[in-house]
Order: sequence, then structure tokens, then C-alpha cells
Amino acid sequence: MRQDDGQGAGAVLGDFVAAASWADIAGQSHEAKRSILNFFATAVGSAHDPAVTSALRTLAGFSGAPTSSIIGRPERLDALAAAFINAVSANLLDFDDTHLETIIHPTAPVAAPVLALAQARGFSGRDVLVAFILGVEVECRIGNAVAPAHYARGWHVTSTCGVFGAAAACAKLIGLSADGIKNAIGLAASQSAGIVENLPTAAKNVSVGNAARNGLFAALLAAEGYSASARAIEGPLGWARAMGDEPDLGRLLDGLGQSWEIAKNTYKPYPAGIVFHAVIDACFKLRARLDRRLDQIVLITVCGSALLLARGDRPVRNDRDARVSIHHCVACALLLGVAGVPEFSAATVFQPDIVAFRQKVSAEFDGSLPDCAARVNIKLASGEILGETVMAAKGSLADPLSDLDIERKLHECFRLSGTAWDADVIIGDVWRLDKITDMSHAMNQL
Amino acid sequence: MRQDDGQGAGAVLGDFVAAASWADIAGQSHEAKRSILNFFATAVGSAHDPAVTSALRTLAGFSGAPTSSIIGRPERLDALAAAFINAVSANLLDFDDTHLETIIHPTAPVAAPVLALAQARGFSGRDVLVAFILGVEVECRIGNAVAPAHYARGWHVTSTCGVFGAAAACAKLIGLSADGIKNAIGLAASQSAGIVENLPTAAKNVSVGNAARNGLFAALLAAEGYSASARAIEGPLGWARAMGDEPDLGRLLDGLGQSWEIAKNTYKPYPAGIVFHAVIDACFKLRARLDRRLDQIVLITVCGSALLLARGDRPVRNDRDARVSIHHCVACALLLGVAGVPEFSAATVFQPDIVAFRQKVSAEFDGSLPDCAARVNIKLASGEILGETVMAAKGSLADPLSDLDIERKLHECFRLSGTAWDADVIIGDVWRLDKITDMSHAMNQL
Repeated sequence: MRQDDGQGAGAVLGDFVAAASWADIAGQSHEAKRSILNFFATAVGSAHDPAVTSALRTLAGFSGAPTSSIIGRPERLDALAAAFINAVSANLLDFDDTHLETIIHPTAPVAAPVLALAQARGFSGRDVLVAFILGVEVECRIGNAVAPAHYARGWHVTSTCGVFGAAAACAKLIGLSADGIKNAIGLAASQSAGIVENLPTAAKNVSVGNAARNGLFAALLAAEGYSASARAIEGPLGWARAMGDEPDLGRLLDGLGQSWEIAKNTYKPYPAGIVFHAVIDACFKLRARLDRRLDQIVLITVCGSALLLARGDRPVRNDRDARVSIHHCVACALLLGVAGVPEFSAATVFQPDIVAFRQKVSAEFDGSLPDCAARVNIKLASGEILGETVMAAKGSLADPLSDLDIERKLHECFRLSGTAWDADVIIGDVWRLDKITDMSHAMNQL
Repeated sequence: MRQDDGQGAGAVLGDFVAAASWADIAGQSHEAKRSILNFFATAVGSAHDPAVTSALRTLAGFSGAPTSSIIGRPERLDALAAAFINAVSANLLDFDDTHLETIIHPTAPVAAPVLALAQARGFSGRDVLVAFILGVEVECRIGNAVAPAHYARGWHVTSTCGVFGAAAACAKLIGLSADGIKNAIGLAASQSAGIVENLPTAAKNVSVGNAARNGLFAALLAAEGYSASARAIEGPLGWARAMGDEPDLGRLLDGLGQSWEIAKNTYKPYPAGIVFHAVIDACFKLRARLDRRLDQIVLITVCGSALLLARGDRPVRNDRDARVSIHHCVACALLLGVAGVPEFSAATVFQPDIVAFRQKVSAEFDGSLPDCAARVNIKLASGEILGETVMAAKGSLADPLSDLDIERKLHECFRLSGTAWDADVIIGDVWRLDKITDMSHAMNQL
């Protein structure tokens, strides 16, 4: 499919989403299942976080019939409210997935409303997969059209583009026509919000939750006949330009159905900023070579790109800082040999040996290294120097998590959260999602 | 109060809103009552519009206990859903109020959630007035800080700033501390959305309704401990800059409590774009002078600013066009002698004599006239030329609607809508709003 020939980007996307069937997307369904499995891992992992509990308390009095699960918990709410809460928990620690070209965390805003709606109305697992893959496609293509300046200007791209993906996915799920899907996408444009300034606070959760909730709302309104401008995305006073971007319509519309954004999805092995993953991997390699000589370490030097230093060369005052700290990532990986959720909790962050070890770490610019690579050099008391360079971190497109890695991540998240939900049941259900005929029945069993 | 001295704009606003009492705002309460009366007029007037009925149908399955009235109708929904619907109906025809400096329609996004919440929780009429006046203050000051470039860039300022007003008003109403109000305002920044490209469609309703709903949501979340960045509005990656504006902190914060934005509110006598009101008034004057010689009119020339021509010199294809058409406004005012809701309905727009009369109208640029002024010249078959110039239209700050004018507007809106609600009861209640001790009781009577 070629780009906009006079009919507007929303109509091109609407035609594409309306026409796509299981046969068209089946080749992407395994990656979609991996994304959804990873979604359940992080959503359950944060299900009992105070931020999720507060949001649930806020919405409890404003829900219709409780058709849809709050993932990892016993409560249910209506599909709009459940979509909000489940997107919040899935994305809370930024431990979810990453579409690297845009830095969108694609699954939380799309899977949350699709699953909530599918449970409420009894759609099939195949319907869910089709809607989800197409929603991620719309979300990430709109992101591609404005990246990277969009985020740099202050827009939290997961929120601002997530609402489009949620709208397209939900409109597909409820079977809207091409015109209805176009309208849902246009209605999303009037609800796109979320700023980077608020990312270190709970306000981040609100824009991510709203992306999920309002995308579903857009689809429901479109089903009732609500319309939007044909050029809501790219018009002179439309979404992209109001946001400060000159949209790249080629990146938005070229090759629809030929390439798939879901194929570029990646999953994090560590709940830290994505640029720190190569640092952690290099430290794991060094730890194996050190063979218990940890007390002989005098100095650790981490070399990386300007982005790595800008994001991670900072004092650590709390657990939020720790997740974006070169020093803390090195301390955990070398000293503890692990970098999971507990290693980035306040308990570990303030542990005296970790605090002291962070002091031994310094960061150095190396322009020869790309953004997600790192070299770590260790100087021992003997004068010996050990070095490791990692160009593609575990979890990157070049070294992706295996299916088993994602299952292990899910087991670990479930264990830490104390949920009553059964990890094995979820894992089984997700891998055979295309065989489930009634999502209402399947989700009600969880 | 002086502007931000290091603590962030949100904190200055939070301190101001938290400290303000009835004694501080009582002097503004009459204008607030006029705004609320006008709000009931337009909300009831559009209560049975298909756009309102569709939104109601969409939300009916997603509401908690029905605590709050859908204005002008028998249905009730929870406060979040009612806030959405009532803001939509009040603003639907752009027949509501105007804060001229920003072109914000200030009341719909603020009064809708305040009234819905006051009814749900039984606050007093005085609480409503205090919250409403402070909400409008926050809304319009944030608008002042970014006007006029904000709207020109594609942001529907009523939606994007309305959410801040709703958040501040609702946070005040439920008695949050200064810090809680600051957080509610910051949470609004992550929910601010709405584009001009979508204004000719039902998508406009969604951003206006969301401003009301999400401002209330922000206050409820802040009450549960949700926080936001201290510089959500003005920070380097905050709301204003992401939106493309360099915020004028002086206009945002200087003279808080000394001047009041509600005092600058204006109310429309005609359901047409505000720049056309002087055109209509000039035509009424000419009609009186013409003394039934309407059939002798050969040509009508409307002279005005570039804004008038840009907004109103257009073909009329439907009722939406008619509300922003110089030609249609002239036709109704001269030929029919009225310019009310029926004159901008499809029935009148396609009436053959009106269609023919619109052809006699042409528009001419006159740089000597300010934006909301107009001169209308009529050429008769005899060669005689009659002219009228109106510098301040009826309803402007210089020639405001009287209290009785607003009551008449309300009666007319009620009559046309076919509502079962009683206009006299509403008028009585609004004028004595500060004497009502329980809004739950008062609203439940309507």
C-alpha cells in the first residue's frame, strides 16, 4: 500500500486495518504472543504497587459492571477502567517492551484495552492477536513519523502514540468499518497527551493509563457515530504540527502490510534504562573472569556514548535514580551478580556495600561506541586490568530474549509480586492464544 | 502575590487556590452566577442533540452509581461521566461564554465537573462558587501565558487549558491542601489535549468533555496521593514548551487575587462565531432603518478585519458553516430579523430565500476596523446606500448582556430543547446559589 493519495493518512490506516485478517498477520503472531507474555509479566509484577492500588481506589466508584480483570489481582472493573489500570501496572517500572526506533513501550497501551474489551465481550484469542498487532503497527508508525524530535521536545511518546494504537486495535476488535476505524484514529488525535517533565512522578501513569482508556473510548464513540477530521494526524492544524512535528508521511504509510513494527519489539531482562543493559552484561562477563577477586577491585571505568553518560552518570538518591544509574548497575552486576527487580529496590539501593561500591565507578565518553553498547574496564589492586565490551546487550534485537527467558522473567515477576494468579496457566494460555475461542471464559479463569 | 520565586508555577497556583475563601471571591460571585446561568442555558439547549445522546449511550455502561444529573435530561451518571457529557452539551454549539483574550470558553470544562461533584457529595452552593471562580482563574491565566500562538498552532485552547481549571476547581472543592492542588494541576498537564483540526467534527466534543472529566480525575488522583512534577507547566520538558509555547510566567502568576479573569467573561446573544456578532448587530440596525424595503436590496458589503474575512468569507454547505459565515449571518439578521438557534439550523440554512440572499453579500477588508467590529453597507435598487458601523457588539465587554438578557437566552434555549427541566427553578437557584446549603438536594430536585 502506498502513502496518502489525497484521502488523508487516517483513511489509509483505516482501510489497511479494516482489510487485514488473521491470514495477513499470522506470521507475526509469535512475536505478538511474546509481547503479551512480557506484558503479563510486568503487569502482574507491579499489580500490588501503591501507585496501582491508589489508581484502583480512585476508579472503584466510577466503574460500570465489572467485566474485566485487574491483572494480577482479584478485583474487576469495567473495560475502560481496567484498561487504564492494566496499562499503568504493565508500564510502571519501564520494565516492559521497547520499540527502539521511537522508544515507545508499545504493548501496555494497546494490550490493556484489547484484553479488557475481549474479556468483556467474549472475543476470540485470534481476534485479540489481530487487533493487537494492527494496533502496535499504527502506534509505532505514527511514532516513526515524528521520532526522535517528538520525545526530545517533551512528549512522552508511549502515551501520545499509544492512544492511536489503542484506538485502532479496539476499533478493529469491535469490527468497525474502514471509515469507523479512521474516525477512531482521528478521535485519538484529540486525546493524545503526556509530557516528559512528569515522567519521574505518578503523573506518568496517568498519561499511559489514559492512552489505553481513551483509545478504547475513541473506538466506542466511533461505533456510536462520532467522527473526526480526515486529516486529524497530518492536517495544518492537526496532531503532528500542533505537537511541533513535520510528519514524515512516508514513514507513516509506506509499505503497510509488508513490514511489521511488532517484529522490531524487544524485551528487557533488567528493570533498568535500556542503555544500561550493555553495561550490566559486560559486568556479568567480568564477574565470571574475576573468580571471587571482587575485594581487589580498585576502580571501574565505564565507557560509552554521550547518551549513556547523559542518562546515567548521576548521583543515586532513591530507587528511581538507581534504574538510570551507571554506578548502581555496575555495583549490582559485579557485586551481586544479578540485576532484577529486588536489586533496584530501595533496600538494595541503600545497602552499605552497594553504596560504597558505587563510589568506585566512573564514566568516560567514547565516541566510537554506539548508543546501546558499552565497554567496562576493571583495575585490580595488583595493577591488572580486565576489560569487556558489549555491542549488543541481552534483550536487544541482535540478542533477543528467548521464549524461555521471557517465561523465566514472568515467573520471577509473579514470585516477587505475591500474586495469587498462576504463572503456568498464563504462560499456557498466551502460547495457545490463537486457539482460545472465548477470551471472556479464559480471563475469568485467571 | 508575585510570580514563581523558585518553587514552580504549580506551587504558586496551589498556594493561592488553597488559601482563597468566600470572603476573597464574593465580589466575583455575581459574574460567576451569570456564567453558570449561561452554562445551564447552552447545556440544556443542546441536551437532546444527537452528539450528546451518542456520548450518553457510549458512557451508560461505564458509570458507577448515578449520583450526578445529565443537565436537561432525566438520566444520571457518576460524576466523571456526567462531567464529560455536560461539558459537551454546554459547549456543543459554541454558544457558551468567551474569555476574549484567549478565546477560551471558560465555563463548560470547569462548571460541569464542579456541579457533578457537588451534587455527588453534597457540597454547598458557596463551595461551588469558590471552586468555580478559582478554576476559571487558573484556566484563563494558563491560557494567557500561551495565547495567542497556542491556538494558532492548532491547540483547542478551551480543551487544553480547561483541564487545568477543572483540576484546580475540583481539588479546591474536595478540600485538598496547597500541595494536593499543585499535584492536581500537574496531573492535568499530562492530560491536556485537543486539536483545532478536529473542531468541525464531533472529535471537538471529546476534547472538551475530557477536559472536564480528566480535571476531576486529576483531583481525585491527587486526593489518593498521586503527585506530579513541580514544573509540569513551565519546565524544560513541560506542558508549555512541549506544546510549542514559551510560557509568560508574568501573565500566569502576577497579581493573583488582585485581578480576576471571570470579570472578563462574555456571553453570546447569537449562536455564531464571536467575530460575526458586530455584523449581526449592524444588520439589525439597518433592518430598522430599511422599513420593509428588503426586496429593494441589491448588494450588501461587509467590511472588517482580516480575522473576520479569514473566518467568515466562505461557502455555506451545512449548519456548521453557517455559524461561521458572514453571508449567512447577514441573511438571517436582515431578512428574518433574528439570529437565534433556529436561524442556524439546517432548515433555515437551506431555505431558498436565505440561500438566494446570501449571494447578495460580499466581504471587504478594512484594516481600520478592530477584530470584533464591522461595517455593513447596503445598496438599494434606487442607488441609495445605507451604512452602519458597530464597534462593540452586543455581548462584548463594552456592551454586555444584562442579567435579564441571559435569563431570556436561557428561556429560549429551554423552549427549543423540549426539556422537562423548569427554567424558572434553575434561574432562581442560580441567583441564590450562595444560599444553597446542599447541592445534592438542589440538583436532585431539577
